[in-house]
Amino acid sequence: MSAQEEAIGVSSAFGRLLGLEILKAERGEALVRLSMHDGLRNLHGKLHGGALFSLIDTAMGQASLSLSDGKPGSVTLECKVNYMRPVSEGELTCHAKVLHDGTRTQVIEAEALQEGKLVAKAVATFAKL
Amino acid sequence: MSAQEEAIGVSSAFGRLLGLEILKAERGEALVRLSMHDGLRNLHGKLHGGALFSLIDTAMGQASLSLSDGKPGSVTLECKVNYMRPVSEGELTCHAKVLHDGTRTQVIEAEALQEGKLVAKAVATFAKL
Repeated sequence: MSAQEEAIGVSSAFGRLLGLEILKAERGEALVRLSMHDGLRNLHGKLHGGALFSLIDTAMGQASLSLSDGKPGSVTLECKVNYMRPVSEGELTCHAKVLHDGTRTQVIEAEALQEGKLVAKAVATFAKL
Repeated sequence: MSAQEEAIGVSSAFGRLLGLEILKAERGEALVRLSMHDGLRNLHGKLHGGALFSLIDTAMGQASLSLSDGKPGSVTLECKVNYMRPVSEGELTCHAKVLHDGTRTQVIEAEALQEGKLVAKAVATFAKL
């Protein structure tokens, strides 16, 4: 098993710092969970936009990695995120899906939900390494 | 002094978790610093895109807050980020500037730099509360 294959489903150091849990990563899709805790709060006492973005970027990265078949993986080139609802407590999940798996790039979309309601939506371009 | 005025220049719980340092926040501009440490690494061993986004979002939030004059502040509605260089070690800074301070929204841009080189660029829309 290559280092990249081992990395599928494995949290990075940053993912562990935030408490991200990778629930699924296969066939171009991934599901990652984040449980709210006090270390993730912004100045309003809500989930920080950067922490929510980190959940999204990690789910996208895992969806991308799930298609790499032991190749060196990918990196985020650009991402657009829309925030729709604040998060105060509880768990949220992010589902990411590779929409286009090109030769050099991938287009990936993701939705973060809490109790069935859309919290944030993002679309990104990843570069294959 | 209101809670919001006190919040200018003060890191959130999430900012402290990452190690963000707010160097300046006045007249619609802000400068925030992040020093690389092992807790911020992605699966490639580089600075995680979510940590870099958190630096950018925090600088934008401080630039926004610096114009609020004790009003309840603002939240990120949407943001587009482009990543240009990986970061392995050392310090980087993010400068954010409010381009448009409207009645209900603000348009804010930010650049993250390391040793004079552009690492990431972002433009966002914030909603005034």
